[in-house]
Amino acid sequence: MKIARRKELIQAGLGNLRLDLLIENIKIVNVYSGKVEPGALGILNNRVVTPYSFGYSAKRVVDGKGMYALPGFIDTHVHIDSTLLTPEQLSTVIIPHGTTAMFADPMEISNVAGIDGLKALVASHEKLPYNLFIEVPSRVPTAPGLETTGGELGLEEVKKVLKWSNTISLGELDPSKVLGLKEEYLAKVEVSQKLGKISNGHTAGLNEVELTGYCCGGLSDDHECVDYSDAIRRLNLGLSVLIREGSSERNLELILRGVLDAGIDTSNLMFCTDDKHPDDIQREGHIDYMVNKAISMGLSPIVAIQMATINAARHFRVDHLIGSLTPGRYADIILCNSLEVIEPFSVYFHGNLVAENGKLTVMLPPLKYPAFLYKTINVSKGKDPHDFLVPANGQKVKVWVIELVPDQIINKRNRAALEVNNCFVCNDIQGDILKLAVVERYGKNGGIGITYVKGFGLKRGAIASSVSHDHHNVVVAGTNDIDMAICVKAIEDMQGGLAIAEGGKLVDCLPLPIGGLMSDKSSLEVIGSLKRLNQHYRKLGGVLNAPFMSLSFISLPTVPELGLTDMGLIDVHKHELISSFIPND
Amino acid sequence: MKIARRKELIQAGLGNLRLDLLIENIKIVNVYSGKVEPGALGILNNRVVTPYSFGYSAKRVVDGKGMYALPGFIDTHVHIDSTLLTPEQLSTVIIPHGTTAMFADPMEISNVAGIDGLKALVASHEKLPYNLFIEVPSRVPTAPGLETTGGELGLEEVKKVLKWSNTISLGELDPSKVLGLKEEYLAKVEVSQKLGKISNGHTAGLNEVELTGYCCGGLSDDHECVDYSDAIRRLNLGLSVLIREGSSERNLELILRGVLDAGIDTSNLMFCTDDKHPDDIQREGHIDYMVNKAISMGLSPIVAIQMATINAARHFRVDHLIGSLTPGRYADIILCNSLEVIEPFSVYFHGNLVAENGKLTVMLPPLKYPAFLYKTINVSKGKDPHDFLVPANGQKVKVWVIELVPDQIINKRNRAALEVNNCFVCNDIQGDILKLAVVERYGKNGGIGITYVKGFGLKRGAIASSVSHDHHNVVVAGTNDIDMAICVKAIEDMQGGLAIAEGGKLVDCLPLPIGGLMSDKSSLEVIGSLKRLNQHYRKLGGVLNAPFMSLSFISLPTVPELGLTDMGLIDVHKHELISSFIPND
Repeated sequence: MKIARRKELIQAGLGNLRLDLLIENIKIVNVYSGKVEPGALGILNNRVVTPYSFGYSAKRVVDGKGMYALPGFIDTHVHIDSTLLTPEQLSTVIIPHGTTAMFADPMEISNVAGIDGLKALVASHEKLPYNLFIEVPSRVPTAPGLETTGGELGLEEVKKVLKWSNTISLGELDPSKVLGLKEEYLAKVEVSQKLGKISNGHTAGLNEVELTGYCCGGLSDDHECVDYSDAIRRLNLGLSVLIREGSSERNLELILRGVLDAGIDTSNLMFCTDDKHPDDIQREGHIDYMVNKAISMGLSPIVAIQMATINAARHFRVDHLIGSLTPGRYADIILCNSLEVIEPFSVYFHGNLVAENGKLTVMLPPLKYPAFLYKTINVSKGKDPHDFLVPANGQKVKVWVIELVPDQIINKRNRAALEVNNCFVCNDIQGDILKLAVVERYGKNGGIGITYVKGFGLKRGAIASSVSHDHHNVVVAGTNDIDMAICVKAIEDMQGGLAIAEGGKLVDCLPLPIGGLMSDKSSLEVIGSLKRLNQHYRKLGGVLNAPFMSLSFISLPTVPELGLTDMGLIDVHKHELISSFIPND
Repeated sequence: MKIARRKELIQAGLGNLRLDLLIENIKIVNVYSGKVEPGALGILNNRVVTPYSFGYSAKRVVDGKGMYALPGFIDTHVHIDSTLLTPEQLSTVIIPHGTTAMFADPMEISNVAGIDGLKALVASHEKLPYNLFIEVPSRVPTAPGLETTGGELGLEEVKKVLKWSNTISLGELDPSKVLGLKEEYLAKVEVSQKLGKISNGHTAGLNEVELTGYCCGGLSDDHECVDYSDAIRRLNLGLSVLIREGSSERNLELILRGVLDAGIDTSNLMFCTDDKHPDDIQREGHIDYMVNKAISMGLSPIVAIQMATINAARHFRVDHLIGSLTPGRYADIILCNSLEVIEPFSVYFHGNLVAENGKLTVMLPPLKYPAFLYKTINVSKGKDPHDFLVPANGQKVKVWVIELVPDQIINKRNRAALEVNNCFVCNDIQGDILKLAVVERYGKNGGIGITYVKGFGLKRGAIASSVSHDHHNVVVAGTNDIDMAICVKAIEDMQGGLAIAEGGKLVDCLPLPIGGLMSDKSSLEVIGSLKRLNQHYRKLGGVLNAPFMSLSFISLPTVPELGLTDMGLIDVHKHELISSFIPND
């Protein structure tokens, strides 16, 4: 803060300077004491000046009508660039739910377009109606040598971004870098520590000894716990737990049930969404959804609010800026009528009313993304059905199958025996064994990786996406090669997007022209398109809640057990390419 | 940590490298989960590798005999240079009590000898058997224009020290600088925030509005709460509370009783000593004393331990280094047999046994202090009894009296009517109104400030000290001018120390030749001398528990209500010099 501004704040605190705003007649949830106190909130510039009303005068006085005032909620780990919306448009869905701080790891745009992409994504951060803090992507690409990406962030780029004032941490570092003793990544952790910042972990699927080795790497937390057993093992090793509820990663209930039963200390627990599509946010909520679910499970409302606010701010070392409604912090405030079910009535950001009654009340900054981000898809393979043919000898082959785990990001390594017809492997649509392909899209080498997937449930057609973690090549799953090719072609034509095809025709699509990741349309339009796409998917036999989210994760080469990139099938534990065919025993 | 060391740690975590030490058969207090788990502690280099025993081999295995293992305790705010001991010698009294981290504000030596003094004090920090982290003195001198000091720390010096790797915060910034909108000090807070570090507060005696204004200054905590009402008001304003038990500042009971009764969240509470003499540490303990007292008052042992460990580490943003027994953190460990009364049996620091059964088990680094620190006392006034004469007209005068508050650092502004004899004001020994003087000792201007004090209880003689906060001129309280002069002379002869005189003779003394603050002798010798001095004091009628600690604070010009410096009597609230005489109404 500029010294002149600091002086004004102190003067205002002393009652010597008129406040901008005084919200009177409220009950303040104090996350430091854990108590609710009647009071007021005095605001100057963008900060809280006082929780008291006595003796203060203000340019504007608002009657809080006895409502509760809570600090704005914090999403501690989110890939803003995998919500399908721009940071600007995201405001319309998260702000009405009371989220006023996003700790965002812009890994996706960095994989597509490197540090220039990252800069472009966060360029609007000072104009947004929420705090956008950066978790610097630690691993771009995620799986060097095992995937093709558009951009890279080396040690020097990471150092540079770590020094930005709105950077709060080194983003999720996956185990292979740490356990593989990769110098570049250990150096990134070291730089972050020297700058007083934490390093976020990412520990899906590690056994006890691997987890121990990983923790020795200097990481501070994990957001990949799927149940209580995962969570308590992380806490025992000194990792804070960022409990996650995304579109297809549902971890809260299984973790919190155990926390409540065992009476675990909650001060190292907080919330995140990681990856949540806007239709799901609109339908059920954002961090408020997690807070309410926790309360409904028996957690004290104050403790749930602490998890969504001060716990997060303290862990990320920004408790002097956000996480509480106390002097000097940003005036990010939720007003609501009940603590049993928290429904934000008014939301203030930096002292300004930004949402009321579920609706955004401010204009968004205009979208301004550089031209290079609109031209990122250049596909060679995958537009011709023949590209998807898998030749084989004999009458049957045994293949590895990536089996989806409903509502989780992890998958299972399964196996199937598939028929061979006319020297090519057939899908087993009855058995829900579909073909899965990842097509290189950066115009670099025209690669294609093909394997099999179980869990999508399609009986006809194909679906595809240019959002496919973390490399963001084009991923496509289908019952037949013709519809798969149509989807890929459509995605190139749109320069990124989601597509669904059936009977040799494109059925529906959602263009995502910004980096092939984000729409340049309003959240309402995107949500409408997503709902329509999901309905089409279900008409084709689909069974998943968030099929395009699941599709985007199926290719991830760092989350167990299998991944698929443009280079082929990945054994995540071994961090190596393997054949889709199972060798004869 | 060097990358090579980090790699070793990870390798050890994976079981690929032999540990230095494995402490087996223990029950680990996990401060993250709040639970006790059976386990082991594997250590490599100076760090914890694992809380598990499975599969690990070690060069040395120790049987923990079923004992509890807790993280070493943290003193969150201490003036190491006002313990009378050097940092080296301090080890012998704190380590056996389980304190393995001192967050030290070396304000005293900085007032005496500036940044060179500070550097000399902490020069041994890498060789000490405890972690010495620096809270950078924010206000040297404490009361510019109202006192004479030997050194100063301006914005540039503070910036420099804030960048050191073992610096954790900007040290206690007193209200006058913040509420007075002093640019230099607000800039120090800003620099600290930019470096990702917190700024410690110091808010004794502020009313609600002043406190609010102060909090707007960007401070993070306070260690000056004397009771629950103080503490809850700080928490409400977003200040963490560093609960203090020093030699003459006893705040724990009054704060904790209220915390327990009201069910206040404890995650923003931690412990400190601020100023505690080695005889008191030896007699009752250090942070362990506070932990045990808290447990005896009804706090859960785990919560008390959290307050002494992780809460402190997290608040000061060093939870990646200390505060828990988890991978990657320093192996600072207390082993003890009970959690009901915690008596450290073994203490490990950085993986090495440093105390057992109440005794230090390691050699201390040799004392190496530069010559300039041994030559800091140069007194003009005060060696001649006439210097203490206070001339007055009439038969009686009304004077301001600094009245001690037992066991607290604050004092009361009282008044007395004193007789005038032969044109000079008389003490009122029956009424315990003694003369108090502060003598300039840096050879700069030969100033002397004189007023009156109540609470020492002396019936004969005088006591004096070259430790007198924060300017550290020579402070002397007495029943007569002759004994006062003898004390001052003795302190100059010793180049610093404590002295007690009676009947025109020096009765006893303790030389403190390092900066006039610290002894170069062993802790045992210092404790012996202190006990003897205290006995002499009591023989002369004294009633205080820690008279030299009380004496050292009586002159402080920043703690209400009155202070006394070499320039005269200070109205702390108004931050200005006032006459000792009360004008006629």
